[in-house]
Amino acid sequence: MKHFITKETPVTEEALNVIAYLPTKSLPAIVEDEFFVKLSDRDIMRIAVLLAQKSYDEGGCPIGGVIIDNRTRLIVGKGHNTLVQDNDPYNHGETSAIRDAGRQDFGNTTIFTTLSPCDVCATLIYMRQFNRVVIGDVTNASGTEQMLREKGVKVDILEDPAGIALYAKYKAEKPDLDLEDWKGLAAVRKAQP
Amino acid sequence: MKHFITKETPVTEEALNVIAYLPTKSLPAIVEDEFFVKLSDRDIMRIAVLLAQKSYDEGGCPIGGVIIDNRTRLIVGKGHNTLVQDNDPYNHGETSAIRDAGRQDFGNTTIFTTLSPCDVCATLIYMRQFNRVVIGDVTNASGTEQMLREKGVKVDILEDPAGIALYAKYKAEKPDLDLEDWKGLAAVRKAQP
Repeated sequence: MKHFITKETPVTEEALNVIAYLPTKSLPAIVEDEFFVKLSDRDIMRIAVLLAQKSYDEGGCPIGGVIIDNRTRLIVGKGHNTLVQDNDPYNHGETSAIRDAGRQDFGNTTIFTTLSPCDVCATLIYMRQFNRVVIGDVTNASGTEQMLREKGVKVDILEDPAGIALYAKYKAEKPDLDLEDWKGLAAVRKAQP
Repeated sequence: MKHFITKETPVTEEALNVIAYLPTKSLPAIVEDEFFVKLSDRDIMRIAVLLAQKSYDEGGCPIGGVIIDNRTRLIVGKGHNTLVQDNDPYNHGETSAIRDAGRQDFGNTTIFTTLSPCDVCATLIYMRQFNRVVIGDVTNASGTEQMLREKGVKVDILEDPAGIALYAKYKAEKPDLDLEDWKGLAAVRKAQP
């Protein structure tokens, strides 16, 4: 069977959304490899933001992550925060993408994350020896970029306005969920009057 | 129905192994709450080591974790490393127990881990505001204890000789797996001649 998305397919929000929603293992059956070669870093970040949107639509934290192979530009893992969906105290966009990728050498990969990584994820990114991290939002959070650079990870900031607006909206709507995701329920209890 | 394990049941390796193997949510149906009150920190560490042994028997990394409520002494989460079992680049004994516990306030809990936490898990432990961590092995690994104390987490070392012997045996048998679990497959590839 021919691919539904080929190298001729225009790079639209709708096409990127199909990629966001498809299981990573199913991508080769639906999307021609050459389509991915056309995708800029900004396009990959859009896929991460569409995953954040998916999580938001499910009632969860809107943070997404995508990992690509630097040479082929193929997606090797992706996911979004599942604090609410999996009742998991720590499964951020980055860990979700890393778990989806499975055991592999991340030394020649780039991880795209819609929001500046927390201390835990930043530590995981350098301990798993990622080559590069691209961050879509240093407006709503920031702080680990310097540490990542010192540990030898290339760090690029590529802010996505729609992703920043989505996270700001969520933070205003659900401040407790945002605090829990960063510092745990203990912090939420302490913050209550 | 009466509990199979009651406050009268002797604290034996076999009884602790039942607790290690039962799903956390099933414990109240099988084990009377008062049994847990009898368990010393050393007994809880034995449960963590039995979880490590379970993982070893499955071909995985022998590292286990148990979280208890400081007041009731009840187990609220437990698990073991699943690098091999789940093909997960980062699910250590600590994260496995935290995921099993689900979203809760860890401010009045203690996490028992059979091996000194890696940088990622240590960061997660203080960011989730655990009150205390008890470490069963600082012989095969160590290094995050000072940082944890500086972040306000109580740290107790309670070495378990059988757990230490098990980890040493595994490290000698599968050095690549040990390195991957700590530093990722990129480190394993670099170490190869």
